[in-house]
Amino acid sequence: MASTSRALSRLTARQLSTRTNAPAISFSPTSFSQTLIARTRNTAVAFPRQFARSYSDAPPPPPKKPRRIRTTLKWLWRATYLSVLAGVGAVIYDGYTDRHPDDQFTPDPSKKTLVILGTGWGSVALLKKLDTANYNVIVISPRNYFLFTPLLPSCTTGNIEHRSIMEPIRQILRHKKAAVKFYEAEATHIDVENKVVKITDNSDIKGKVSETNVPYDMIVIGVGAENATFGIPGVRENSCFLKEIKDAQSIRTKIMDCVETAAFKDQAPEEVDRLLHMVVVGGGPTGVEFAGELRDFFDEDIQKLIPDIAPRFKVTLIEALPNVLPMFSKQLIEYTESTFKEEHIDIMTKTMVKRVTDRAVEAEITGPDGKRSLVTIPFGLLVWATGNTLRPVVRDLMSQIPAQKDSRRGLAVNEYLVVQGTRDVWAVGDCAVAGYAPTAQVASQEGAFLARLFNNMALTENLEEKVRDLSAGLNLQPGDTAAKTQEIESLEKQLRRIRDIKPFHYSHQGSLAYIGSEKAVADVAWLNGNVASGGKLTYLFWRSAYLSMCFSPRNRVLVALDWVKAKVYGRDVSRE
Amino acid sequence: MASTSRALSRLTARQLSTRTNAPAISFSPTSFSQTLIARTRNTAVAFPRQFARSYSDAPPPPPKKPRRIRTTLKWLWRATYLSVLAGVGAVIYDGYTDRHPDDQFTPDPSKKTLVILGTGWGSVALLKKLDTANYNVIVISPRNYFLFTPLLPSCTTGNIEHRSIMEPIRQILRHKKAAVKFYEAEATHIDVENKVVKITDNSDIKGKVSETNVPYDMIVIGVGAENATFGIPGVRENSCFLKEIKDAQSIRTKIMDCVETAAFKDQAPEEVDRLLHMVVVGGGPTGVEFAGELRDFFDEDIQKLIPDIAPRFKVTLIEALPNVLPMFSKQLIEYTESTFKEEHIDIMTKTMVKRVTDRAVEAEITGPDGKRSLVTIPFGLLVWATGNTLRPVVRDLMSQIPAQKDSRRGLAVNEYLVVQGTRDVWAVGDCAVAGYAPTAQVASQEGAFLARLFNNMALTENLEEKVRDLSAGLNLQPGDTAAKTQEIESLEKQLRRIRDIKPFHYSHQGSLAYIGSEKAVADVAWLNGNVASGGKLTYLFWRSAYLSMCFSPRNRVLVALDWVKAKVYGRDVSRE
Repeated sequence: MASTSRALSRLTARQLSTRTNAPAISFSPTSFSQTLIARTRNTAVAFPRQFARSYSDAPPPPPKKPRRIRTTLKWLWRATYLSVLAGVGAVIYDGYTDRHPDDQFTPDPSKKTLVILGTGWGSVALLKKLDTANYNVIVISPRNYFLFTPLLPSCTTGNIEHRSIMEPIRQILRHKKAAVKFYEAEATHIDVENKVVKITDNSDIKGKVSETNVPYDMIVIGVGAENATFGIPGVRENSCFLKEIKDAQSIRTKIMDCVETAAFKDQAPEEVDRLLHMVVVGGGPTGVEFAGELRDFFDEDIQKLIPDIAPRFKVTLIEALPNVLPMFSKQLIEYTESTFKEEHIDIMTKTMVKRVTDRAVEAEITGPDGKRSLVTIPFGLLVWATGNTLRPVVRDLMSQIPAQKDSRRGLAVNEYLVVQGTRDVWAVGDCAVAGYAPTAQVASQEGAFLARLFNNMALTENLEEKVRDLSAGLNLQPGDTAAKTQEIESLEKQLRRIRDIKPFHYSHQGSLAYIGSEKAVADVAWLNGNVASGGKLTYLFWRSAYLSMCFSPRNRVLVALDWVKAKVYGRDVSRE
Repeated sequence: MASTSRALSRLTARQLSTRTNAPAISFSPTSFSQTLIARTRNTAVAFPRQFARSYSDAPPPPPKKPRRIRTTLKWLWRATYLSVLAGVGAVIYDGYTDRHPDDQFTPDPSKKTLVILGTGWGSVALLKKLDTANYNVIVISPRNYFLFTPLLPSCTTGNIEHRSIMEPIRQILRHKKAAVKFYEAEATHIDVENKVVKITDNSDIKGKVSETNVPYDMIVIGVGAENATFGIPGVRENSCFLKEIKDAQSIRTKIMDCVETAAFKDQAPEEVDRLLHMVVVGGGPTGVEFAGELRDFFDEDIQKLIPDIAPRFKVTLIEALPNVLPMFSKQLIEYTESTFKEEHIDIMTKTMVKRVTDRAVEAEITGPDGKRSLVTIPFGLLVWATGNTLRPVVRDLMSQIPAQKDSRRGLAVNEYLVVQGTRDVWAVGDCAVAGYAPTAQVASQEGAFLARLFNNMALTENLEEKVRDLSAGLNLQPGDTAAKTQEIESLEKQLRRIRDIKPFHYSHQGSLAYIGSEKAVADVAWLNGNVASGGKLTYLFWRSAYLSMCFSPRNRVLVALDWVKAKVYGRDVSRE
């Protein structure tokens, strides 16, 4: 109440001061308070005027407002250019440290060998926090970069260039205190008996050695998962996935290929409709964001450049469950569905894809009455944004371990992320089953947990060794026995404190999704509850959240530049 | 002489004024002129001091230098931020006009149909200057963008991102006054008898219609050329070309593939040497620039991130002629060769490639004594940057025209770029033989010439029609015969002036090439002579010249941003 009335009085005072030439009396409901405030105002200014008169009979000096505005503007301008200069300085300094890493030392070869498989969210979060001086760390992955997957849908239309969300693993490793080895290879077999992992160079260019064994003392499996097609015929041949950079690039090329083929001479109208019909299977955040980005692309760019065909463009989202975005709260699901309606994106829920050909999807719809019917949906581009399945190396490992017999979705792990039925094998991310959803957030927290665990383990072993040494020498030599005993006690105290590491616990920070036309939905954990919001402001939040989550300042600058670029120049419609 | 002595006296005067505390007499050869000037100087400053003293006895006011410096700095700072603001404003305004093109009108269907094949230098230069209101223009090309080829070597290492040098043809066409049709297709057959061109959609996604005929009244062939392998076995299978964006991307991926494979566990040293040996065939500007860019990439980035293997990296340039860069003057060739020696880039001249396998080049070297010897050069990556050959559609067209029987390198054209032995068929660029080298500069000037020609032709036809109408109506109706006759005369005068179009003449502006370590060579036409220069300053000239030659302001901004990006953050070493 108090703040409202204060705001009101401020407002009315401003009205008064600017409306001097307006009719004197107005019969609005606020007139009473106006009079009241006008009176207080008069009292407030009375003193300086009287003082001025006592000093000279000249008319009172003009109010100093314009000058104050000028001063404010001057300071604002200074603040602006200083912050711009500081920003540029920060970017250059960051670039400089990026390009001039300190010298690295090679860890003691007698230390344990820690092999990390994969360069996704889990492995990179682990690497980021791991003190690499404690182990001989070897990273193995067929992909020599980390990919910021949440922005992948934006890459499909060129809103963001793909290299802006990639961070070279070499760059990450080069900035660790102690050297880390990296092999660009796929792990094909993990021998938990002999503690050896077999790796293969699967890229185009191969050396004389393209397959070898890497022995390990400890191994972390963070290889992620593959795209699942659920055995539906034709999916792998006729659709695009949306998991890796190559997928996003291929979708980008295909969207423009559809557009150019639709604009081909003498193309029949129904064929144009087919070519410009983009079907997305999967109502999770990836599918929803991709559909939104597609709509934006056509509305903002294709519409302007190729106006003849743009109105025939259509997006359909197919989901087997009764609604899209199942991890969001009900009101946000409804908001998304109504926004999609405005954007002319069709949502087909309770629809199961049965078969895919090169030009159409055959699907079974369950109607509101429970009746099932088959439909054929012709498409120009089909994007398959649903389902995870095991990678061959994980399936192979599970077949070796009896305790994993009943696990279906991945490697069952205990509360310390140790793979059940093994020793010295940990798993993180989409290939591990720890009771959480297969998301980047979970993988990232798991990786950070393991980093803490390993740092502590190294510290513990270090202290234990010291205690062993001290107690072995105790009472052998005369003198300072008391001091040694005291040191042992202090070390054991430290040990007790360190050992007390709690099991992994996932803390959900929230879910975000872009839904097109500069709107987003967010379900964010706040204190002990949840805040659900949707709209244009949430879109700004979405942008700033993703920007702050980018791996490196470099990624952050590049993504921000891409957004500005897309805003100023539009998306690039070259087919490449 | 006069200017030298003036400069000398200015210099000495400054020396005098700053060296007041120095020993009074110096026995340098300039001492006589010093005395002379010191005397003149004293006379010059005498008057104001006397004047000051006559006004007050106070000591003369202190010199106002610090304040002047402050004012200068203030103005410099203002100039800086105002120009930055103006630059940002210009970029935003340009982006705005880019994204908000005016409405286009469709040209009168009775106008002639002008078909333009290709979206390279020739075709785009023609499109840029052509008044599209005079014709029904149809552009046909399998590539829906223009590519700024001179910067393609920079794309191979990520110094420039490929989309920065691509300009969507849709964007170019959308900004013409009258609408232009574009079909993304390859011209497969030109029927000069029936004036029809057959086009095929060769991209992955095809519609029901993927092959059709386009009738024309006039046609311009600007399809360029293909890579020539000169029948050497193994070239197409085992090497990369450097002509299109896809080539640059594939080279970029392969460079990093070689690096990662060389860093693979247990790779033998000689295999590492092979994998890190990059061989470039062709000593023209493309090959030389690529070799230089490669060297930079390793020295500036790989060296820092993967220091173990970087020293084993090697670049070799193979050229069949006695020297590289044959279009440059002798001193620049020598400069390039000595710079390459400093950069540890081997140049093998008089070397003919005989056979290429997946791991080695077999070549024949002619020694200084004229003796020939065979060598085997193992490589990790082979880039083939030499030779042009006819595209199938051009070969097919030449076989139809008896007059083209003796032409080997392309379509022989006359001085107006009309294909010999045809009517209404023109050719520009690498597929045309007009007596000039197959360069972007020639193609671009040819395209611009055709635009002028076609604009004039349309104007002429328009005027001739008017004259015909007027003379047909002459003496049929009474009155203003004199006025009509006068109008006819004035129109015919205009006609005579327009018709007088001179044959195409190529004006060589110069040659530029980047040669690594921030050095470039330039042979630039200047007045009636030639200016040859090489080094770091020439590199700045190279940059500004290429920046100013970029197709659009958008390209210019993006390329400049990429340069800054690569400088600040280094090149991206992710393999993708």
